[in-house]
Amino acid sequence: MTKQLTVAIVGATGAVGTKMKEQLLKRNFPIKDIKFLASAKSAGKEIEFGGKTYKIEEATPEAFEGVDVALFSAGGSVSAKLAPEAVKRGAVVIDNTSHFRMDPDVPLVVPEVNREDLKKHNGIIANPNCSTIQMVVALQPIREKFGLKRVIVSTYQAVSGSGISAIEELRVQSGEWEKGKDVEAKVLPVKSEPKHYPIARNVIPQIDVFTENGFTKEEMKMINETKKIMHLPDLEVAATCVRVPVVAGHSESVYIEVEKEASVQELFDVLKDAPGVVLQDDINNQVYPMPIFVEDEDPVYVGRIRKDLNHPKGFHLWIVADNLLKGAALNSIQIAEAMLEDNLL
Amino acid sequence: MTKQLTVAIVGATGAVGTKMKEQLLKRNFPIKDIKFLASAKSAGKEIEFGGKTYKIEEATPEAFEGVDVALFSAGGSVSAKLAPEAVKRGAVVIDNTSHFRMDPDVPLVVPEVNREDLKKHNGIIANPNCSTIQMVVALQPIREKFGLKRVIVSTYQAVSGSGISAIEELRVQSGEWEKGKDVEAKVLPVKSEPKHYPIARNVIPQIDVFTENGFTKEEMKMINETKKIMHLPDLEVAATCVRVPVVAGHSESVYIEVEKEASVQELFDVLKDAPGVVLQDDINNQVYPMPIFVEDEDPVYVGRIRKDLNHPKGFHLWIVADNLLKGAALNSIQIAEAMLEDNLL
Repeated sequence: MTKQLTVAIVGATGAVGTKMKEQLLKRNFPIKDIKFLASAKSAGKEIEFGGKTYKIEEATPEAFEGVDVALFSAGGSVSAKLAPEAVKRGAVVIDNTSHFRMDPDVPLVVPEVNREDLKKHNGIIANPNCSTIQMVVALQPIREKFGLKRVIVSTYQAVSGSGISAIEELRVQSGEWEKGKDVEAKVLPVKSEPKHYPIARNVIPQIDVFTENGFTKEEMKMINETKKIMHLPDLEVAATCVRVPVVAGHSESVYIEVEKEASVQELFDVLKDAPGVVLQDDINNQVYPMPIFVEDEDPVYVGRIRKDLNHPKGFHLWIVADNLLKGAALNSIQIAEAMLEDNLL
Repeated sequence: MTKQLTVAIVGATGAVGTKMKEQLLKRNFPIKDIKFLASAKSAGKEIEFGGKTYKIEEATPEAFEGVDVALFSAGGSVSAKLAPEAVKRGAVVIDNTSHFRMDPDVPLVVPEVNREDLKKHNGIIANPNCSTIQMVVALQPIREKFGLKRVIVSTYQAVSGSGISAIEELRVQSGEWEKGKDVEAKVLPVKSEPKHYPIARNVIPQIDVFTENGFTKEEMKMINETKKIMHLPDLEVAATCVRVPVVAGHSESVYIEVEKEASVQELFDVLKDAPGVVLQDDINNQVYPMPIFVEDEDPVYVGRIRKDLNHPKGFHLWIVADNLLKGAALNSIQIAEAMLEDNLL
């Protein structure tokens, strides 16, 4: 990887954008030049990167001239407007928003699962939803060996998935122990929705807005994106997405049904060597994944693997990963790295 | 209900015992006399009840002389030793520990579900596990109309289920925001186990100790007790039990498969008139159950009811209740009330 690239980050001051900066440095991404783009309001502000100070530029179509790869994480409407402009000017866009994910012309990629799809790109590659990424990384090695028929997931999602203001809300509320349900809530579950609920000492069974069928958008993302990434349009997927008072690290209680009978030991065997996965399952020593210990860690951790007591092809798993890293920033950079290696950049 | 009874509480200073005292007063339970029993260590201490001060007596076999109903909540070994002694002396025991629950001679009762089983008692009635009670209260009305074939539950359980010391641990850790994973942990997940993990900003996929098959005891309680209470030995039940940083109120993400096809509206219809249930499902107005709002409330709240997108007999539900009330103290007192009404006391 000697090729040096000009990189742009759109939305560099957000929770995911900050992690993208860290990952580019930590992974020694071959950067020739880097630009930080934002709305007119933030343009002119200064931002640190690798010991140097940069001025944030306004994200206009022209700002993408000369950019090789543009990492977008500034909301769906920004991507909708500017990603095509970046592509028009020769950039490859890796978009962390949901805007293009289900577009049949846009590959939706988790390199451990469907790296081959990168070859079919038309300038834009979508980075999947955080909860979806960690689940498919863990399920793909099982699917390869035993097939996959059904998935039922209940999530325990960290507030960082809702941005820096949600982390701050949890911090403030956590200090106001005596106030209980009377703490002030302005951000969660969804900033733009009329009602807000406390997250400290609470769990909220709403992430993103509701859709017609009673599932939330977050739940439908898990359902639809899983099928697209795994190329399993007939996979039966159901999701219940819940916000919990955790800063970083999404956890998932996942029930699966595979196609071929398997044992817990066989699942251990495929997972312990699987790319991007750490098997953390030693109940005799109370070893299982927990979100507080995965913050700033790259892998997807899997544990609590049990065979269903009634269905010989049914298994229960507990999957945890840092939602801002493998769930967002890290996966985006891994997409860029894979494209470089495969001469797609 | 004019009959007046002599009541004993064993374990009155614990999290559940305290709520039992409150419930007896709040529900005007017909008390002729009340005694508070504990270990020799606590005997002689004073305890308040209904504006009067009582001396705690040592829980010896003889202390149950003259007692009509004894409410036990002081750990399985205390119940094992003293419940038979209380019965020998003419008391009816309502036991909140797990010790007798799966004994075929002991009814395991949630009055809304299997009140009839009280008639078969031999002196001891077992109060089920907290997470099980709220689930069967919500599922029974559905089962009566549509049958029930399968249940897969993932729980979000409050720390109060682990006692007063666990609530205190969460309180202290919540104030130590900057320490993150380095806060001191001494109680959770299981006090007697070698390893303890922080609960603030974390979720822990272990409640109670592990069993041979990889499920925890808490998970096996939900599986076995549900079948016994509902008289459905062949019901397919699976559970994943997780501790979350919530003080009071267990939440459950539950997938069910019924026997007869049904619509979401039909489930609404049976649940809105079901005993002990409050239907709280109006997603257009962001109305769904949350633990912080059920503290000190009697009912079991049900919301987020959705039809599975692949299985016409599959439904997803979100069930929340105060684990110390309907999950423990309230259900125990309701058992005593039902026995009084049915002339079993």
